[in-house]
Order: sequence, then structure tokens, then C-alpha cells
Amino acid sequence: ALAAPAIAQSAPQFTWRVTSSFPKALDTIFGAAETMAKYVNEMTDGGLTLQVFPAGELVPGLEAADAVSSGTIEVCHTASYYFWGKDPTYALGTTVPFGMNYRQMNAWLYYGGGIDQLNEFFHTQNLHYMPCGNTGAQMGGWYRKEINSVADLQGLKMRIGGLAGKIIEKLGVVPQQIAGGDIYPSLEKGTIDAAEWVGPYDDEKLGFYKVAPYYYYPGWWEGAPTLSTMVNLEKWNELPAHYQSVMATACEAANSNMMASYDWKNPNALRSLVANGAQLRPFPQDVMSAAFDAAQATYEEIGATNPMFKKILDSQNAFRRDAYLWAQLSEYNYDVFMMSQQQAGKL
Amino acid sequence: ALAAPAIAQSAPQFTWRVTSSFPKALDTIFGAAETMAKYVNEMTDGGLTLQVFPAGELVPGLEAADAVSSGTIEVCHTASYYFWGKDPTYALGTTVPFGMNYRQMNAWLYYGGGIDQLNEFFHTQNLHYMPCGNTGAQMGGWYRKEINSVADLQGLKMRIGGLAGKIIEKLGVVPQQIAGGDIYPSLEKGTIDAAEWVGPYDDEKLGFYKVAPYYYYPGWWEGAPTLSTMVNLEKWNELPAHYQSVMATACEAANSNMMASYDWKNPNALRSLVANGAQLRPFPQDVMSAAFDAAQATYEEIGATNPMFKKILDSQNAFRRDAYLWAQLSEYNYDVFMMSQQQAGKL
Repeated sequence: ALAAPAIAQSAPQFTWRVTSSFPKALDTIFGAAETMAKYVNEMTDGGLTLQVFPAGELVPGLEAADAVSSGTIEVCHTASYYFWGKDPTYALGTTVPFGMNYRQMNAWLYYGGGIDQLNEFFHTQNLHYMPCGNTGAQMGGWYRKEINSVADLQGLKMRIGGLAGKIIEKLGVVPQQIAGGDIYPSLEKGTIDAAEWVGPYDDEKLGFYKVAPYYYYPGWWEGAPTLSTMVNLEKWNELPAHYQSVMATACEAANSNMMASYDWKNPNALRSLVANGAQLRPFPQDVMSAAFDAAQATYEEIGATNPMFKKILDSQNAFRRDAYLWAQLSEYNYDVFMMSQQQAGKL
Repeated sequence: ALAAPAIAQSAPQFTWRVTSSFPKALDTIFGAAETMAKYVNEMTDGGLTLQVFPAGELVPGLEAADAVSSGTIEVCHTASYYFWGKDPTYALGTTVPFGMNYRQMNAWLYYGGGIDQLNEFFHTQNLHYMPCGNTGAQMGGWYRKEINSVADLQGLKMRIGGLAGKIIEKLGVVPQQIAGGDIYPSLEKGTIDAAEWVGPYDDEKLGFYKVAPYYYYPGWWEGAPTLSTMVNLEKWNELPAHYQSVMATACEAANSNMMASYDWKNPNALRSLVANGAQLRPFPQDVMSAAFDAAQATYEEIGATNPMFKKILDSQNAFRRDAYLWAQLSEYNYDVFMMSQQQAGKL
């Protein structure tokens, strides 16, 4: 159809700030907020304008949720698991150790009622939650010495945070909270023995391979961490319905866009890291199994006194069980065959 | 910020038709067009209204691209590989046998310049291409008898279409073109020996397990087929920039939304199929290898006379090679460990 004659329409104007929990240096994660904001700004022709600020410019990264909940700032882009200390249910909006993989998380969020279940919780925090980005399965971090069994974890001082730190502590690790910029000198001096960050693309920039060459996988504590855009609940409710739809759709597009960005960048970074001396190592099976069991024990402890946490995790786990049954057929066998062709130099 | 006073703004009004290449019965694939249209309609508050029609209501499914190219209809939602007979480059907008997996395809499309490269071709067809949905790795179809080697494929009459048919022909299969509704009676009578459709969710509805119980995997000809929304190029160029952004973002969101939908539905359908007697079988390795080699030979033949096809496939393959190197680390090992836990009944 041709364009109809222009009609006058009232267009409300909103200018909102988005505080990121990440520095600009983490350009892919910070970039997901920028992508989301760009989509919103373009789609509304500036009617809803989002301005993104890196961690620290408006409030520190770990105060993002509080600033939005209180209404000081309209929107944040964050990993909700940073705030698990307030309530472990926050972690379920990102991931928990041995959680679902990327595709499973999205299936549960968008079709398994996950977003609604999470918002049943987040609305009690005066926050409206929308998934907005994913790193995929992260790496298991950098180690000064090889890890050959659970015994090698005893007393290991490792930079690892949050719920993962609480779980890995059960395996003998002594978790350390250290800001990104301080990890390298701590590893170099031997103040710490190991550190986890993200994956090849981000890790390469910090140069850990020079001082802790053993690069372990998989990052079992972050199988598919989901970033989120969280909006102050009153502000969200003030938005006209079409602007709510714009934000939700922009977040859904940015959610997969960030995964595509990492998937594009990580292969080259991995190649470069290995060329520079990074030593790739899989975690021993006894470490994986002990960590899995420690995670389940931790969730039982939390769930015993936190019915909301238990209800949402049970929902995630029920789907994870079935999804990993299906994943063993076409998707897995396709990839395994293609990997065998890659190894044979046929791709 | 509070809402500023309403301002008058000219809002052009468009009402466009979207012709789907799929029947409503394929509700997940057809649903991707509905999801995309819903997002567009909501985000523009009806300013750009898309009306979706199933295959056959406006034009037959396999005439969707022609109808849009000629301007008879503004938009189609289709699998561009249906039109590979016009030019094999059409297939590269969906997938080719042994192509990239779901995440790799998105990385290449959104970050590897894939969308732009494809539009360099599609614009010559008077079409503007946007990815809009994915089934993930499909299953390898239903067989009346077991396939234990390439020898068992000799003379096998199989319902399989397009470029995959051309490739599998090299392995001795006699490809048949049969519409969805005619597959079941053909298998029952033995007019054909095998048929491929989509995956557990769609296949279950057609009841193939009753007449061809061997259900093979993986569907090597469709590792991650990408659906697309294609807009008549002149119509696209007439859209105001913010409506172009709305359509592109809605397509990007619907692209991953459809994958989430299948990932949510397939596990239950698989369970049900097996309970009803479907016999799961992996393709023998010699079949996979012979098919891979036949595919490469076919691409070389096409590329020898079609530089655009060669250029785009080379770009896809260069990324696929690196991406499968990276995929072997965290993502793969995370999933393998979780599958082992699933098999041990620990999930």
C-alpha cells in the first residue's frame, strides 16, 4: 500500500538513562546495552531516547540494581547474579553453576514462562526484568599450575565471585574478590593462583596467558550467563504500550546479537592466545563431578528456606533435563561430525 | 525523565501483506512471521501494519519470492533455498548441506557481514533480505528400513528436495518431490522408502513413525536453516528509516524467538515419538563422509560458473572452520558433561 496522508499524532517524549554494570573495556557486554539503546532510539525516532553510561559514571557497577529499584536511574544493564547476596533468586535471572546452555535458557525464558516467573520475583524488587545479552559458555579461567584432580584445588587462591565462589569453596578453593584491573598483578606476584574472567576475546586483552598459562575449560559456573535490562517498575508502568513493546523487542534482538558478537570474536582470539603460549586444558572429570555435586547441595540448602528460588530453579531444571535428552541427537551429532571434519582439515 | 508535553508529529501509515511459504499447520515456522508482524504492529502502534497470510491464500508458497520481487505483494516469509533453481545463491540465505550451525550462522550474518553480502545478491533480485527464524539442526528423516551403509542408499526413493536432493542423488538416492500432505500415504504404500520433514515437533503431527519407524539423525542437509523476511526492494526503500529499523529489529528478535520455540517444543515431542515406537538411529559414518564429500564436489561445480555463490560460500566456510575450532572447547565440553549427567539420571 502507498503511504497514507500524514496524520497528526501525539508522541510522548522520554529521555532515560541506562547505567551499565560494565566498563567500556568489556566492549561486547557493554555493547549489548548500546545495541539495545540504538535500536530503541532508531525505532522510536528519538521518542524514547536511552543514554547508556559505563559503570562508575553515574553509580558503581554493583549498585546498578539499587539505583534503578530506588528510581534514582530509570534503567540498568547488568548481570542480575551480582546481587545474589540480597536474595539468591537474583542469580536465576543470569545463570547458576551447571545451569542451562544458551539455547535452553532462551527456550525457557521466552517459551517456558521464564521471563514471567522471574518478574514475579523482580517486581517485588521494584524492577522489571528483560533478558538482554549472553556470553555463551565461558572459559574456566587461568591457572599458574596444572589442575589434575580435586586435591590440586585445596587452598587454591582463585579470583572468582558470587554463587560460584560459594560452591567452589566446597572443593577447597579460597575464593577472592578482585576487580578486573587488579587481576594481572595479583597473578604475576602470586598473591592469587588462578582467576576467571570471561572467554578468549576479553581474556586476551588482560594478558593473563603471560603469568598463568593454563587455560581451563569449560567454565561450569557460567554455561550461558544472561545479561539483563532492568527498568524501574513505576517508570516501566508509565511507558505507553508501544514503547514497552519497543524496549522488549530491542532487548530480545540485543540478547541474541550479543551472542553472535562473541561467537564472531572468540575464534580469532583463541587462535591468538594459543599462538602466544596459552595452554588449553579440560577440567578433570573428578573436578567436574565434585563441582556438580557441590552445586546441587548448595541449591538444596538455599531452596530449603527460599521457596521462590526453589520454584524457579525447579522450573529451569525440569526443562534442562528434557532439553539435554533432545540435544544428544541431531544438534550434537551434527556438531561432532563437523568437528571431526575440522580436525581432519576438511572444513 | 518525565514525559514531555505531547508534540504533533507526522506519522505515515502503511498496511502491507506478508505472504508465507508455509501452511498454518507448520505453526512454529508460520509463527515466526506472526511473531515478527506482531512486534512491528505493536511497536509502531499500527503505523506499519503487517498482515500475514499462509501459503496459498495469496500465492502458492513456492511463488512467494516472485510475487514480492515483482511488487505484487510487499513482503514474504520464506526459506530462500526454495528458489535455488533460479540461482543457487538463493540457498545461501537459508543453509546448504553441512553449513554452519545455528550460532555460527547468526555470528556470520550479524557480525561477519553476512546480511550485507547476501543483500548484494538479493538486491539484484529486487528483494531485501532479513534473517527471521531458524529450526536448528533438523532430523535426517524417516526410513522404512535401516540404513547401515552407503550401499543401502542405492535406489532408495526418498522425499527430499532442493540442493540436498541434488547432493544425495550422488549417493544413489532417488530424490522425490512430494508435498507435505502426500508423504504419509506414499510411505504407507511403499511408493517411497523414506522422507524428511523437519524435526520431532512437526514430524510427530504427520505420524510417520507408524509407517517408517527408523528415525535418523543428524539432518546433515539442514544444520541450521534460516528463514527470512524478504521485502520488495522499492517498497523497502520507501519506508521511513525508523520503520526500516522497526522491521529489521523485529526480524532479529523473531529470528531467535523461533529457535527458542522449537527448542521448547522438540524435547517433549521426541519423548512422545519414542514412546510410540520411533526407532532412533544415527547415520553411519560412511554415509556422513560420502555426503560431505558429495556436497563439496557440488559446491565446486556450482562455484566454477557462479562467482557470487562462490564468494559468499567461501566467506561462510572460512568462519565455519574457525568457529568449529572454538566450539570444541567450553561449549562442547559443557554440553558433553551435562549430557553425561543426564544419562546418569542426575539432572
